[in-house]
Amino acid sequence: MKHLLSMKDLDRDQVLQLLDTATAMHDVQHREVKKLPTLRGRTVVNLFFEDSTRTRSSFELAGKWLSADVINVSAKGSSVSKGESLRDTAMTVAAMGVDALVIRHHASGAPAQVAGWVGASVINAGDGTHEHPTQALLDAYTMRRRLGDLEGKHVAIVGDLTHSRVLRSNLICLSTLGARVTLVAPPTLMPAGISTWAKQDGFATSHDFDEVLPTLDAVMMLRVQKERMSGGYFPTPREYTVGYGLTRDRLAALPEHAVIAHPGPMNRGLEITADAADAARSMILDQVSAGVAVRMSVLYHTLASGEGSVR
Amino acid sequence: MKHLLSMKDLDRDQVLQLLDTATAMHDVQHREVKKLPTLRGRTVVNLFFEDSTRTRSSFELAGKWLSADVINVSAKGSSVSKGESLRDTAMTVAAMGVDALVIRHHASGAPAQVAGWVGASVINAGDGTHEHPTQALLDAYTMRRRLGDLEGKHVAIVGDLTHSRVLRSNLICLSTLGARVTLVAPPTLMPAGISTWAKQDGFATSHDFDEVLPTLDAVMMLRVQKERMSGGYFPTPREYTVGYGLTRDRLAALPEHAVIAHPGPMNRGLEITADAADAARSMILDQVSAGVAVRMSVLYHTLASGEGSVR
Amino acid sequence: MKHLLSMKDLDRDQVLQLLDTATAMHDVQHREVKKLPTLRGRTVVNLFFEDSTRTRSSFELAGKWLSADVINVSAKGSSVSKGESLRDTAMTVAAMGVDALVIRHHASGAPAQVAGWVGASVINAGDGTHEHPTQALLDAYTMRRRLGDLEGKHVAIVGDLTHSRVLRSNLICLSTLGARVTLVAPPTLMPAGISTWAKQDGFATSHDFDEVLPTLDAVMMLRVQKERMSGGYFPTPREYTVGYGLTRDRLAALPEHAVIAHPGPMNRGLEITADAADAARSMILDQVSAGVAVRMSVLYHTLASGEGSVR
Repeated sequence: MKHLLSMKDLDRDQVLQLLDTATAMHDVQHREVKKLPTLRGRTVVNLFFEDSTRTRSSFELAGKWLSADVINVSAKGSSVSKGESLRDTAMTVAAMGVDALVIRHHASGAPAQVAGWVGASVINAGDGTHEHPTQALLDAYTMRRRLGDLEGKHVAIVGDLTHSRVLRSNLICLSTLGARVTLVAPPTLMPAGISTWAKQDGFATSHDFDEVLPTLDAVMMLRVQKERMSGGYFPTPREYTVGYGLTRDRLAALPEHAVIAHPGPMNRGLEITADAADAARSMILDQVSAGVAVRMSVLYHTLASGEGSVR
Repeated sequence: MKHLLSMKDLDRDQVLQLLDTATAMHDVQHREVKKLPTLRGRTVVNLFFEDSTRTRSSFELAGKWLSADVINVSAKGSSVSKGESLRDTAMTVAAMGVDALVIRHHASGAPAQVAGWVGASVINAGDGTHEHPTQALLDAYTMRRRLGDLEGKHVAIVGDLTHSRVLRSNLICLSTLGARVTLVAPPTLMPAGISTWAKQDGFATSHDFDEVLPTLDAVMMLRVQKERMSGGYFPTPREYTVGYGLTRDRLAALPEHAVIAHPGPMNRGLEITADAADAARSMILDQVSAGVAVRMSVLYHTLASGEGSVR
Repeated sequence: MKHLLSMKDLDRDQVLQLLDTATAMHDVQHREVKKLPTLRGRTVVNLFFEDSTRTRSSFELAGKWLSADVINVSAKGSSVSKGESLRDTAMTVAAMGVDALVIRHHASGAPAQVAGWVGASVINAGDGTHEHPTQALLDAYTMRRRLGDLEGKHVAIVGDLTHSRVLRSNLICLSTLGARVTLVAPPTLMPAGISTWAKQDGFATSHDFDEVLPTLDAVMMLRVQKERMSGGYFPTPREYTVGYGLTRDRLAALPEHAVIAHPGPMNRGLEITADAADAARSMILDQVSAGVAVRMSVLYHTLASGEGSVR
């Protein structure tokens, strides 16, 4: 695997291999001495055109625990602000001699473009509302730890689907692993053309969270972005919560074995109640922890896979 | 020692042990090869909700010289700006699998709260006007190098006591080590309720710097924050200097053996004259140097103390 | 070599030695495992008073590949913004125990001043419009790789000479290596007093790019800074391109063996056409790659040269 640009590029076996390696990495992460020599002398650059402390830190730790050199390049204060093109910025960073570019960009498709220009491995760390494959992998990893094989499991993705960075990657990943997915959102936050897309790709959509709830094995709550609130997407925060929040009542209606996910940062009291966020079946902190393991796995498979097994 | 939250948590023996270890670390710092394997595979996160390049850099070097992986997470550009709570931010960072969180926060008590939530060690790198224990330890370390045992020594802390981040930790630390402390400030910059506090804890207060000066073994000048100048705390910079600056005249009136400290950054010409800042008995750069050694000691005792002696 | 402040401090032999070491470093940079133990336990601080992601990243990689600890200190959010003097900032950072300060500053002469104050090695990473010696060295390195010995070669430096950070260092370096230099710019962007300077130092000046073009072995295009455009330095971007851009026509008029340099970031379509930027004889990405090798060489010669040869 040279790049990780889209979940579409991975078949079921590849996904499972990435998740299996993540399991091995997760063990390392819980050792007292969190350090593998695997990527010693390799260089990973976090090239972030948008802020994302959480994702950047996760990749930074993943690289460092594999003994790679990691440097952070932020578009703020960089030549990007002087009007340099994406191509020139990416080729310049790559020309320094780096082995992997981890790219976060506001434009859908930017990492794939970069992969066509540079010799380094490119890892998509979120491109617009297009894909965020490591997030989908960490979600799948965490659900599998709790639920076992995802084949036939029913997962709802709930909330602001129109502006979500994680929707598409999760849909692809979950369907690759055989899960059944239902998207739940108010009409104003359901992406245009979703019904055609749903028919093609075999997932369901619903505007009625309560109807879907009792059949779920996992519910993934998406963040309501504060900046949408004034956009006319829903009348008031209170009404959003009433219709689509994971409230205390809905928590009670969720089957006992079903788990709760959220990519963070959460708006407690808006899309998720504190009881749900902190419940034993909430996987929210497990997702964060798995994030580092999954990114170690991705760096391993893109940069070191030819070199024998994980030590 | 699991956390370092407040100087109150440390008895005299613990303070002396931290300072002794700092002495050993100081030697390492002056070697050509500044590197101990002590914290290899451990991860330290500088989680700074306020800017402080000086303190952040000092912890970063301390961690790196002990072979820890260190990453910096700034509240600017992080999920904090998206309204995430302190609890969720801290738990998210901790969930990645880090061993220590070094926290700078504008709210008094924030690091102690975090210590109640996470499994990692928490080190207070300054919380509001509450405490800044590593600063107090480095001040004590530097004074002891110059003056020997602090038992019975007379130390004045002079200046903007109301807004000082270092006052409380220094008071506790100095009294733990048996020093006699006098606080010197204009009435407008003396904290409310200071007289009750002074009676309880056995330190003196004064509005007359010149009276206190001849009896001192050490004088710690505090920074006048520019943003206070327009707050009505004192009439003009010039009058502040006349009343409370360490001027050339006061430098001459200070006993010859007495040393000068300042936490930096200094306003030369305002609270301290250049002659005093650059005098042979100024410890200001020694404080900076000691800062790294003390923070190495703190990281060692919180993260590695169970593992045998410093190598 | 204790510091690298100005190209004037280096004689021909020293320049050649730096370039030779850079060649050895360049090989390391192209290995799969990019890591030399040379500077293990040494600490390099990037002390940047101005943004420059490109230069900062290049030094950061150079330090890390030599196994140094590298930390970044940005003037933004540092005590500099609290009004601390350059001297106090530099002495504070140095007092932590660092071995080299890599300094970028908006004021000409700042790094040389710092070198007079601190015990650490100081490397000038660009001071105002004064010097940027590592840029000159990487330009010379890249030209030598393509053209061989620069003795007698004709190099034009074209564009905004008044505001260039790289002009002076390049002039000195090229003349030290025996190249013949012609400066090309519109009258408004030619530095005041240039004709006296040119007479003294033996370089030519011209306002006619087309006349100079056919005699060149190398052409270095400088960036037009967007903020100059409204300063009355030239009528319109279009007219600038017509008079001083490396257009397609000029690319055809350039001798076939002649190479093209640009310090980046480029304004494609303004001072350089895409055809020229991406031509086989464009050295622009080579310059970036050489930048890391040259900075490894500089760090090696300032910090480790007493310790035997490059391993």
